[in-house]
Amino acid sequence: MNASIEKRAQGLSSTLLETPVKASASAPGKVILVGEHFVVEGSPAIAVAVDVRARATAEAAEGDLVTISSRELGEASFGPGAGGGPLYPVYVAVQEIFKRAGRRAGLRLTIESDIPPGAGMGSSAAVAAAAAAATARLLGLPLSPDEIAQAALAAETIVHGKPSGIDPAVTSYGGAIYFKRGAKPERISADFGRVRLVLADSGIQRSTGALVARVLETKRRHPEVLEPLYKAAANLAEKARSALEKGDFATVGELMNINHGMLSALGVSNAKLEELVYAAREAGALGAKITGAGGGGMIVALCWSEDAERVARALSGIAARTIIAPVSEKGATSALARAPTSRPSS
Amino acid sequence: MNASIEKRAQGLSSTLLETPVKASASAPGKVILVGEHFVVEGSPAIAVAVDVRARATAEAAEGDLVTISSRELGEASFGPGAGGGPLYPVYVAVQEIFKRAGRRAGLRLTIESDIPPGAGMGSSAAVAAAAAAATARLLGLPLSPDEIAQAALAAETIVHGKPSGIDPAVTSYGGAIYFKRGAKPERISADFGRVRLVLADSGIQRSTGALVARVLETKRRHPEVLEPLYKAAANLAEKARSALEKGDFATVGELMNINHGMLSALGVSNAKLEELVYAAREAGALGAKITGAGGGGMIVALCWSEDAERVARALSGIAARTIIAPVSEKGATSALARAPTSRPSS
Repeated sequence: MNASIEKRAQGLSSTLLETPVKASASAPGKVILVGEHFVVEGSPAIAVAVDVRARATAEAAEGDLVTISSRELGEASFGPGAGGGPLYPVYVAVQEIFKRAGRRAGLRLTIESDIPPGAGMGSSAAVAAAAAAATARLLGLPLSPDEIAQAALAAETIVHGKPSGIDPAVTSYGGAIYFKRGAKPERISADFGRVRLVLADSGIQRSTGALVARVLETKRRHPEVLEPLYKAAANLAEKARSALEKGDFATVGELMNINHGMLSALGVSNAKLEELVYAAREAGALGAKITGAGGGGMIVALCWSEDAERVARALSGIAARTIIAPVSEKGATSALARAPTSRPSS
Repeated sequence: MNASIEKRAQGLSSTLLETPVKASASAPGKVILVGEHFVVEGSPAIAVAVDVRARATAEAAEGDLVTISSRELGEASFGPGAGGGPLYPVYVAVQEIFKRAGRRAGLRLTIESDIPPGAGMGSSAAVAAAAAAATARLLGLPLSPDEIAQAALAAETIVHGKPSGIDPAVTSYGGAIYFKRGAKPERISADFGRVRLVLADSGIQRSTGALVARVLETKRRHPEVLEPLYKAAANLAEKARSALEKGDFATVGELMNINHGMLSALGVSNAKLEELVYAAREAGALGAKITGAGGGGMIVALCWSEDAERVARALSGIAARTIIAPVSEKGATSALARAPTSRPSS
């Protein structure tokens, strides 16, 4: 334990005993603007945080069990040692905070999320980030976005095996993130005030892992075709970054359209995704594409704010779900609140 | 006039006077398998002749006028000197034969075509090739496929201004043609006996010239993105050629799918074309893609022969027209026939 962590940890239990409080936190979902799939082989990708959020509240509890409850996933309690089940990744994120704090604490955590799960919007990373941020806030432990991202990444490793790290970075930092495998994620300086993202869910379930494996297999079979395509995608992501920095959203939209075709070339599109993409473009989106693994999941349309309602209307009749969301400049945020009503009765 | 042409021309009028005959010819439509748009900037493309044909019959007529008639385009007569109108390109092809023969002749030409016009299937080149072949046959002038292609190219120059030459080459040679701008078209040695092409017409009219210009403008704006994409397309065409030569149609189909995504990246797809492409793939096509300029026009699906009916059925409800066609190993063909009934009455 280093000196700084030791200092943070001191007075922790006294705070909890003196002032039983509740801490709440939220963290945004993510949408990949350009570069998915290509990022797996070293091309850059750009993702943005969207104001569709996961929330967590943390309250002190007797003992050293961490009880996590969710409307969708039920409730589970975790003590020291290994665990499992759908809520275990959230506990892993909380454990990371305990490690930083230098001690465990009894906690009651409630999580909820507006982010559609399994849709490539980073729902699990956002839930983990919110849980980590709420826990740290309750323990009086100030965390940087990097530290929240590391806690969420630990949770993601349970969920995905070998996560890219893009979801934890985006949900922790907010805004737009330039991501390249093996390099530290960079926040892109861009002003998204004039635009909205319209997300449309195909309603088709798919396995991200299977799609990634199939794309890599196609690349292995046709390297002379796909390697220059990956080069094109890498250059596209660089150009999109520079267009974002200039606020040139028309170019960003055009590059998203080109990127969509490249994803189609990788074999991850289908009839429903194409229907959604062209409906969005025809309704006036600056650009529209598959976001995430494809094969199902969601499409994202970039729109001027004033066009977002029209684009969403065009999609609502043919999508399983349509969401209009601004880019969230804020990543994971947390706050303390006195919570007399939820004070343990014992 | 060289000796060979002089020799061919001798006895021409005596043949016509002694044995009034009719000559008929037909020439196939073309479908681009891979490489459209990319071919404009120097990548290779592969096109195949399909057994959907244009036909022409030529009969000797008094005087030196060439009268061309078509059910769709009416009738027009052309003398020496400039001309115009929709049938003029056909006359230009006939004129090329007169140049080779070393003299004009009075002719009555009837043309008809099963090839949908304006659909990127090389209808105008096939009509011109059939007219040229029928005329040459009537005049007793043996022509190589190259010579027929040159006559059709002269007609295409009237129609398109600066034609690529791919349509005249395919309709004259038949089979599969590897084409690269500025190089002589090469016939690919491939056996298409086990496969069929299913063509589906979107019913959407578009201007090939405008689409080509828009793609080039996109390339000019984003060279760092599109140049590697063009490299990928060039490598794809080479790989498709080698797969065709091996009879590996599964790989050809897969490469067609990848090529379709690249065309989508160029911005020439739309909702209807995508609907057709995915309907064909889902019905069991080996591959399906836009063929030709995109923006409308047709898609082509490559199928095992036994699957063609099923794929066509899946398309027939959503396409303006669906055609099942084998690849035509034969290019432009012609034959003489005695034609006593159509002998001029004078």
